[in-house]
Amino acid sequence: MKRTEPDARGAIAFTESDPRIGELLQRTRRIMDLSLIASLASWDQQTAMPSGASEARMYQMASIRSVIHEQASAPRIGELLYELSSIVAQAPFTDADRGLVRQMQRAYHWETKLPAELVEEVESVRVASVDVWIRARRHSDFASFAPWLERTVVLQREIADRIGYSETRYDALLDAFEPEMTAKRVAELFTPIRDISITMLKRIQASGNTIDTSCLYGTFPLEQQKTLSERLLSTIGYDFQRGQVARSAHPMTCRFGSPVDVRLTLRYNERCLVQALMTALHEGGHALYEQGNAYNIMRTPVVGNMVSIPVIGGASLGAHESQSRLWENALGRSLPFWQGGKFAIIQQSFPEQFKNVDVIDFVRALNKVEPGLIRTEADEVTYNLHIILRFELEKALINGEISVEALPDLWNAKYREYLGIEPANDAEGVLQDIHWPFAYFGYFPTYTLGNLYGAQILHTLYKTFPDFDERLAAGDTNFVLQWLCEHMYAFGGIYRSQDLLKRMTGEAADPQYFVRYLTNKFESIYHLAAQ
Amino acid sequence: MKRTEPDARGAIAFTESDPRIGELLQRTRRIMDLSLIASLASWDQQTAMPSGASEARMYQMASIRSVIHEQASAPRIGELLYELSSIVAQAPFTDADRGLVRQMQRAYHWETKLPAELVEEVESVRVASVDVWIRARRHSDFASFAPWLERTVVLQREIADRIGYSETRYDALLDAFEPEMTAKRVAELFTPIRDISITMLKRIQASGNTIDTSCLYGTFPLEQQKTLSERLLSTIGYDFQRGQVARSAHPMTCRFGSPVDVRLTLRYNERCLVQALMTALHEGGHALYEQGNAYNIMRTPVVGNMVSIPVIGGASLGAHESQSRLWENALGRSLPFWQGGKFAIIQQSFPEQFKNVDVIDFVRALNKVEPGLIRTEADEVTYNLHIILRFELEKALINGEISVEALPDLWNAKYREYLGIEPANDAEGVLQDIHWPFAYFGYFPTYTLGNLYGAQILHTLYKTFPDFDERLAAGDTNFVLQWLCEHMYAFGGIYRSQDLLKRMTGEAADPQYFVRYLTNKFESIYHLAAQ
Repeated sequence: MKRTEPDARGAIAFTESDPRIGELLQRTRRIMDLSLIASLASWDQQTAMPSGASEARMYQMASIRSVIHEQASAPRIGELLYELSSIVAQAPFTDADRGLVRQMQRAYHWETKLPAELVEEVESVRVASVDVWIRARRHSDFASFAPWLERTVVLQREIADRIGYSETRYDALLDAFEPEMTAKRVAELFTPIRDISITMLKRIQASGNTIDTSCLYGTFPLEQQKTLSERLLSTIGYDFQRGQVARSAHPMTCRFGSPVDVRLTLRYNERCLVQALMTALHEGGHALYEQGNAYNIMRTPVVGNMVSIPVIGGASLGAHESQSRLWENALGRSLPFWQGGKFAIIQQSFPEQFKNVDVIDFVRALNKVEPGLIRTEADEVTYNLHIILRFELEKALINGEISVEALPDLWNAKYREYLGIEPANDAEGVLQDIHWPFAYFGYFPTYTLGNLYGAQILHTLYKTFPDFDERLAAGDTNFVLQWLCEHMYAFGGIYRSQDLLKRMTGEAADPQYFVRYLTNKFESIYHLAAQ
Repeated sequence: MKRTEPDARGAIAFTESDPRIGELLQRTRRIMDLSLIASLASWDQQTAMPSGASEARMYQMASIRSVIHEQASAPRIGELLYELSSIVAQAPFTDADRGLVRQMQRAYHWETKLPAELVEEVESVRVASVDVWIRARRHSDFASFAPWLERTVVLQREIADRIGYSETRYDALLDAFEPEMTAKRVAELFTPIRDISITMLKRIQASGNTIDTSCLYGTFPLEQQKTLSERLLSTIGYDFQRGQVARSAHPMTCRFGSPVDVRLTLRYNERCLVQALMTALHEGGHALYEQGNAYNIMRTPVVGNMVSIPVIGGASLGAHESQSRLWENALGRSLPFWQGGKFAIIQQSFPEQFKNVDVIDFVRALNKVEPGLIRTEADEVTYNLHIILRFELEKALINGEISVEALPDLWNAKYREYLGIEPANDAEGVLQDIHWPFAYFGYFPTYTLGNLYGAQILHTLYKTFPDFDERLAAGDTNFVLQWLCEHMYAFGGIYRSQDLLKRMTGEAADPQYFVRYLTNKFESIYHLAAQ
């Protein structure tokens, strides 16, 4: 992919000649460098580090984090931010300057508001808690994990109190992942999504129509899946000169300097091809966003947040997820995408398995709807229900409306209510995700926000390119990537996600786009009469 | 391998209760953590990083190095070292305390004596110089590289002047790799080695005896070579729980926290098995040394130097090389080693190739002597001649006795004199090694010092274990590893290499052990009449 820098002389350029912007940039670039090396050490930990090194690595991470903390909370940064905040709105300052000041203000706020002992306790509780959770899940033993979750909730409440919020404690935590979003606004956006998801699921089940997915199962040697995934990534524009693909138990995208070093990990299932394909497109979407960042904002927090606020980059976690889901679902589970030469790649990779499979049946198989207990395996119709119930539970937990002990029953009740099924045990229920042991409260809603933003952006793409499907079917995805680079990826975190969405689509976030997307797509796939 | 901590309550324990030792440890552990993460970033650069990330990584390395520099040159460290230096020789302080103070003094000296601009210039000249050298070597064009080498020599002289020395400038540079060694002492040690090498080579050539090495050539799929190398590493005691094997163009051992995270890279030649085998044993020897460090000294500079002095660890680079060469040559090119089940592993890995090969012929093939132009491919008889001529040239260069322009001719003349052959061009001559472009003056002699120390240690091993060969032939190498761990590896850099050698062998470094080793071994292999 050729990178696009739409207006490097305009919005994306920093006013380096201003001595305050100059000094702020100089300091933040150094902090960012350290932060990127720390990310590299985390990636190494998950992909290569020998098991015996865990304790030593823990010390190393603590040491580098403490240096980052010292530098990011330096009084001089506070002075520069104070001076700049009153003038940066006007000329000659640019959107990039404003993005820089805003991102550094958030980081400085988090770094200075939280005492070191609290940060250390959160970290050590996290390590222990993940450890206990792994064993608890293995034995489906929520009781052993409960005290650690209790402690995590107490610590997260303390963080919320110190960071500050206007409406509820949960808002402070949510803000770390989706800046300036509130629980109240999320609930408003989610209500129509919850309703359409439940309705669509019932309509599909009532129709009695089924989808045959047998073509996706067989024997797929891992080495060939790897080659196939990498070819697929190449065709959508992932640049291997600025990236690399590794394997890990949990797929992820990691950046050690966007846009020039953006790597991803995949996982493969020998018996089923879906996982590899969809993971490649999902992580590929994240990676395209990062590789699309303008070079000007490299080494600054404008490529995404750093230090104590664990955001992957871009405008927000929701904005990022909108791209992974756009490439995975809106494109990657659509007929024209596979018709455009991609299904042929699969047929070349596994000729025996696919020689007699029709692309239409293949894509239908990718879109089978079936309520399940496992979030990460959910289809597009049921996925958001998994998220919404988690959001409702964690919000109530942080805001003190429910207790940790009550969680398993509430979890099961919500699965019954939304999906009509119930976990047989806590391992496949409340103990399913790492987010809570990891103290990531406020993270879950960004998945569904991503779907919502993604559908709205997709609508704009269809308006902009009336021949969208035809171009996809002709094998072109580059026009999509170019448009997204110019209107979204290049800017990194210069704009807040809500502002960015407005710039891209002309409107504030509106769940009706997702409602319509889901309705149209699954009425067609399941041959349902339009209502 | 079960790790051994001989006297963790004695020499290897720090006096943490002393507030000065306590504070020094606290500060150095943090610096060491950062330094280890920086090493990880270098390793990543050579094994995984996408090419597009080079510039971004350069900034990252500069940023973390500048933090390390600030912390290692902090005035408070100077104060602590000043206080401790006058009292650390007495009780209650231990050898570990003395090692800590000595190592930190060296680091502090280097960090404070060299101005930041000089360090930066060395770094940027190094990057450019390596770049020019790669192209110069490709076109065998010494003239294009000469100005960069000139500049490097000037900078190295300036470093020497600032660091200080008693006899010659070269001593200051040598000291970075082999503490407290001087050019004069090296020349004394090397003279008998040069003489015996030339003599042995002539005797072998005069004998007219040849060795058939055809059994080493064939087709060896890389994946099987990898598995074989890893099995070999396992049998000699390399612990994969605390290590990992990767691939790179240049084999190396990297430690990101000895003894718990010691990784190595290997390279394979599809047509010849020797490279994989010998590289595995060579890097394996380095790795065993690091994995053998006592846990007490982890995260301290006592496991080896840090920051500006690029030493791999242990007592010195020579001490380290003694171990890679001991495992590669003294064991790995000996008959009893391969008889002890190791040749059977090779036969299992490549049954077609080796089913009719006798282990005696195999080991003879590993020991073929033939003067060549490439240092890294040299046999044990000629290897030190490659080193000694480089030492003589670089010493004269730094001390201002010869000019850069004269180097190619002097190089060729020395090859003719010592080895009886001459490079056809500078690519296979003076442009051969990365050490000079990399500004590593004083590094070369440590290879031959390693051979010298190694032979002396081997002599002690034979004295300690009169049934040494029998035990090897019975498949045991663990007794060697245990003894080396207890007498050498556990101590890391607590002792200076010369002191350590005396502790281990009862004597100062003596080249006669190597002279005898070489004579006996090659008289036997080439069926020469003893003189």
